[in-house]
Formats: sequence, structure tokens, C-alpha cells
Amino acid sequence: MKKYNFYAGPAILPQEVFKEASQAVLDFNGMGLSILEISHRSAEFQAVMDEAYELVRELLTLPDHYEPMFLQGGASGQFGMIPMNILGNNETAGYVNTGNWAEKAIKDAKLYGNVTLLADSSDKNYSYIPKEYSIPTDLKYLHITSNNTVRGTQYHSLPDTEVKLVADMSSDIFSRPLDIKKYGVIYAGAQKNMGPAGTTLLIVDKNFLNEPVRPLPNMMNYQNHISKKSSYNTPPAFAVYVSMLTLRWVKAQGGVNAMAKKNIEKSTLLYNEIDNNELFFGTTAKEDRSQMSVTFKLQDEELTNTFLEKCAEAGCVGIKGHRSVGGFRASIYNAMELEGVETLVDVMKDLGSKKG
Amino acid sequence: MKKYNFYAGPAILPQEVFKEASQAVLDFNGMGLSILEISHRSAEFQAVMDEAYELVRELLTLPDHYEPMFLQGGASGQFGMIPMNILGNNETAGYVNTGNWAEKAIKDAKLYGNVTLLADSSDKNYSYIPKEYSIPTDLKYLHITSNNTVRGTQYHSLPDTEVKLVADMSSDIFSRPLDIKKYGVIYAGAQKNMGPAGTTLLIVDKNFLNEPVRPLPNMMNYQNHISKKSSYNTPPAFAVYVSMLTLRWVKAQGGVNAMAKKNIEKSTLLYNEIDNNELFFGTTAKEDRSQMSVTFKLQDEELTNTFLEKCAEAGCVGIKGHRSVGGFRASIYNAMELEGVETLVDVMKDLGSKKG
Repeated sequence: MKKYNFYAGPAILPQEVFKEASQAVLDFNGMGLSILEISHRSAEFQAVMDEAYELVRELLTLPDHYEPMFLQGGASGQFGMIPMNILGNNETAGYVNTGNWAEKAIKDAKLYGNVTLLADSSDKNYSYIPKEYSIPTDLKYLHITSNNTVRGTQYHSLPDTEVKLVADMSSDIFSRPLDIKKYGVIYAGAQKNMGPAGTTLLIVDKNFLNEPVRPLPNMMNYQNHISKKSSYNTPPAFAVYVSMLTLRWVKAQGGVNAMAKKNIEKSTLLYNEIDNNELFFGTTAKEDRSQMSVTFKLQDEELTNTFLEKCAEAGCVGIKGHRSVGGFRASIYNAMELEGVETLVDVMKDLGSKKG
Repeated sequence: MKKYNFYAGPAILPQEVFKEASQAVLDFNGMGLSILEISHRSAEFQAVMDEAYELVRELLTLPDHYEPMFLQGGASGQFGMIPMNILGNNETAGYVNTGNWAEKAIKDAKLYGNVTLLADSSDKNYSYIPKEYSIPTDLKYLHITSNNTVRGTQYHSLPDTEVKLVADMSSDIFSRPLDIKKYGVIYAGAQKNMGPAGTTLLIVDKNFLNEPVRPLPNMMNYQNHISKKSSYNTPPAFAVYVSMLTLRWVKAQGGVNAMAKKNIEKSTLLYNEIDNNELFFGTTAKEDRSQMSVTFKLQDEELTNTFLEKCAEAGCVGIKGHRSVGGFRASIYNAMELEGVETLVDVMKDLGSKKG
């Protein structure tokens, strides 16, 4: 039976990516060697890294002074590395708290400089994106989490400021176009919308990112990774390779504009069902609903197991909400086809009567 | 043509590991999902992580108070993380400098505490392992690099001290038994003798490793990784999986004792040819020769291209020495079969006349 994978991450990737990656594990490019056993300094792997860089540049229309990097440690690793590199002891960064991930970023940043909490949606269980708040002009940067996978919120407009944004884009990078000049640093764990677990994409404005503000171990100093093109030490070669294949697929599909169109179509279909089916309700402010992470609940929690069973029967897996909030979550990243969302909607329809 | 992979890392792994990993990229355990797209919190992936832990424990005979972790960032990442966690500002650690990797570890450690350079083999181009030096008893730890892949040296006996060792074992972990009680921390990038690039094994003595000596970002605090069993954040799932498959293979082959026997056989065969063929010479002190990283040179450098061409014709790839030292290097990790070394030795024999 065909499976529709709604896991939040590691998450669905295109089937053609799995096929090509599977072959490369046996024999990469006819070398007679596995992609897992070749040197990261070989011409063959450097071509992979080069293409990955080029695809990031092209898909996000990066100006020359922006530089990608493929690092390790997940977005969680960047919560600390960013302030270590950028935020001096006496400098101040602004953070917006939209839930779990932002909270963790804030906690790490406080170790290195001053943190001003500009806004916080904890008053309503992180069910919305704060919009009305004043932003000091002398902040070193303003940190946001563009999409919250746990709560199901997403920024649909950016804070109105000249302060450079530092954005955790782990769960919606490459899902839509972005206004790159607003950002000083973008970071994203690959395992949601870009590739498998094991690499973290950074995109930095080299005019914003200077030498580290304090002495740092070599691996924690961004300048080493920039100057060595993500090969300061052995990069996570297979994760970069599969990410590259996924970005190739994004390009072949029409790039981030095509992705955005498809993501709006899928999320609209699902939110319409949530709104129109009296058994379910959405958990986030409508204007802040995520096109990637659709969270919802049953009016009658006793139907939970029945619903999950029917999902499983239809091939829909990974629908359970994050363990910290309960309910349901359908992660509908780029690689989720409309058919998968239609299948889930059919299960929701079959579960019970419709409104009206 | 069959390829014999002598790359230093990422490096050869068993063919059966590639076959099983390739299948899992298409469909893991008959789930109808790729190993690359399943949640790290799924029962199926947790079983992988549990088995990886258990194999590390079993193969290295770890007492209960030792704990493995699968992290990211390579051994290079640990050069900084270790002193950040362990070495207080006013404490002193001893380091032995046996070349490139030790040098980098020393540089990072100096950022966090006092570093005493106990011994240094730079006087002879790092061609030997220092043995005669005094070790203060009040060191926080003594850091060694068990095998130097660039120079081709390896510790065959440990420093005689009660001070706990912190060892970078990236290139020879699981190649031979070890006296675990001597170690406070063992760390190893997977991509040489344990798996693909993308994960780093740590083994810590929980009686040695306490709470971090300074406030640290969450991802840099070992205690978070210990308490969450390497799933504090999304682990590098595929790299852990392939490492687990490789450790399963090590166990099936008879464990680290069987590996040691085979590694001695292979390295002896190759060193004998280096010593007996007048065209070649070894570059390291005989008593410190590595069983993993066999470095050698041609008496007549003009034969270099001819030799490399003949290697390629015989299927032997990855023989060129590290870019910083030149010459040749045959990395003969666990997964290199005797046949591969025999093939290389045949090429060396064919290249020219024998001594005597």
C-alpha cells in the first residue's frame, strides 16, 4: 500500500530522490564505489558540493555577498553558534518567542550577550505570530522562527525594520520565495523540507557576518566554514548529496514559486476541511496558519484512536501531534503530493458528518 | 572491475553494509518508507539507535558507567567541545602533539584552560610516538591521538599514568581491543573505521564527566546528549544506521579481536613489501607504525605517476598521501580485505626489482 508520510521531520522526500540515492549507495556515478566511501576531497564529491551550493544560490536568488554553508548539528546547534559568533557581551539582540524552538534559541543567546524579548505569543499558547511591537534600531540582529512545526504557525509577513533578521527556517526553507536582503543569517536543519537529517544549511550575508566577536574553537567559527566551502573538516557527505538531489528536484518542478503555489493549494484544501468538518477544529490564528505544518484537533478526543486507525488504513502516517501539545499535525512539505492531502481529507470526511 | 578503496576517509565499508543501506533508502524494514524519511522518535528508528548503543557496549566491553553518544560535527568538533565541558579556566590538561589532529585539539583547548604540552614529535616530522615524558598527576586529563592518518603513526602502548586519557580514536576505533578503564573520553568521527561521514561516536566515563565547568549552549553540553540518548535533537539518523550495520558486521566477523588479527596480517604484509622492495621506503618509526594508515614513499619520485597509474589499473584507489605530506598512504581499515592489500603489494612488486 502506498504510504503518505506526514511526519514532521525527518520527513517526506521525493521518491525519485530515494531511488537515485539508493543507487548511489551501491555505486556512485559508475565509479564502482559507494557515495558513502569516497573522499570528500575527490573531484566526484566536490562536484556534488558545488552543485548543492549552486542550487541554493539559484533557487533563492542569492546575491554574490550571500554565502551558503552545509554544516552539522541541526538548527539546535545554531541556537548557540549564532550568538557565539555574532553577539558581543555588551551587544543586544532582539528575539521573538513563538514557541519551543525560539525559546531554546533565546536561552542559548543569553549566555553571550543581551537579549531583548520583543514579543511573545505564550499568552495564547503560541497560537499566533506577534505583529505589533516596537523594534529598537540598534539591535545587532532580530531573531525569528519562520515556521513553528509544533504549534503550526508561520510568518506571512516580516517585521518592518532595517535590523537584519536571523531566521530559523528549518521547516519552510525552499517552500516559497524570500526577500533575501532582509536577512543576515538564515539557518535550517535539512530534515524537514530540504533533505535527510544530518546537515544544516546556513546562508549568511558576508557584509553582516564579520570575524567572530570572541575567540572560538575552529569548528564553531563560521569564517572557517565559509573559507573552506563547507569542507573545513569532513562534511556530512551523504546528507549534502541527498539535499542536492532534493534541490535538483525543486528546480525541475519550477523552483520555489512553483513550490509555493502547490503548498498553498495543499494547505488550503486541508484547512478548508478542518473548518468545514464539525468534528475538527484548527488550533492557530487563521492569518498565521502554516502552509507546512497543519495542526488541528478533534472536538471529541475519544475519537482519536479511531481517527488514527483510519489514517493508518489509508496509508497516512505521522499524523500525531507533537508530544508536548497533542492533537494532530499534518506536515505537508514540498515533497507531499496533493494526492496525499486528498487522501487525508477523505479520511476526515469519512470520520463523520459535515457541518451545515 | 573490482575497486579496492584505500581512501583515508570517508573510507571503505563492507559491501554487505552498502547493500542493506541501499535497500533501506528505498524501504526500511518493510515499512513502505525510506530510512531517510522516518521520525527519529519512531519505534523503528529508536530500535536502530538502541542496537547501535548495544553494539558499542558489547564490542568494547563497556562497564555500566561508560556511556556512548552519537553526535555530529566530526572529531574536529570535539576538539573544542571537550575542553568547553571539562577544562576549567584554572585547570590544566596535558596534550601530546603527534601531528595535525593533535595540533588542532591543542589550539582549541587553549581557549578554555591551561594546556601543558607533555611531548611533541615535530622534531622528526611527527614520524614517531613520543614515549619518554613525565606526566604530572594533577592534570584534568591527558589527550592523545591514538592513530595519525596523515603521518601513519599509532600508539601501541598507552602512557603510564593514573590521569584519565581523552583520546581521539577516529581512525582506529574498533580495530583492536582497548583498556577502557584508562579512558575518560573516547571520541571518533565515524567515517574511517565505523561508518559514513556524519556522526561522531563519543564514549564517556560518567564518573569522569561531570556537569560542564562553564555555562554552555544546550547542544554543546554533553549531559543533554547523555540524558536524551543522543536524541536531544534530531540525530544524524542515516549515519547512525549505517554505523550500526557496520558494527553488526564487526560483531559477526568475531569482534575487535578478530579485527585486530586481520589488521596485523594486512599491515604486516604491506610493511614487509615496503621494507623489502628497494623502490619504496616507510616514513615512520617501525615500532610506531600504524596498522590502519600505512604511509610510504618512492625512492625515485619520478615514478609517482607510473605507480599511481598501475594502482588505478589494478583497481586500487585513494593511494595518494595527504596533501600536506605527499608520498603514499594505504588506509587499510577493518573493511579492507586481505585481497586488496595483496593486490596493492602485487602492483608494488611489479613496479620494479626486489632487494637482494
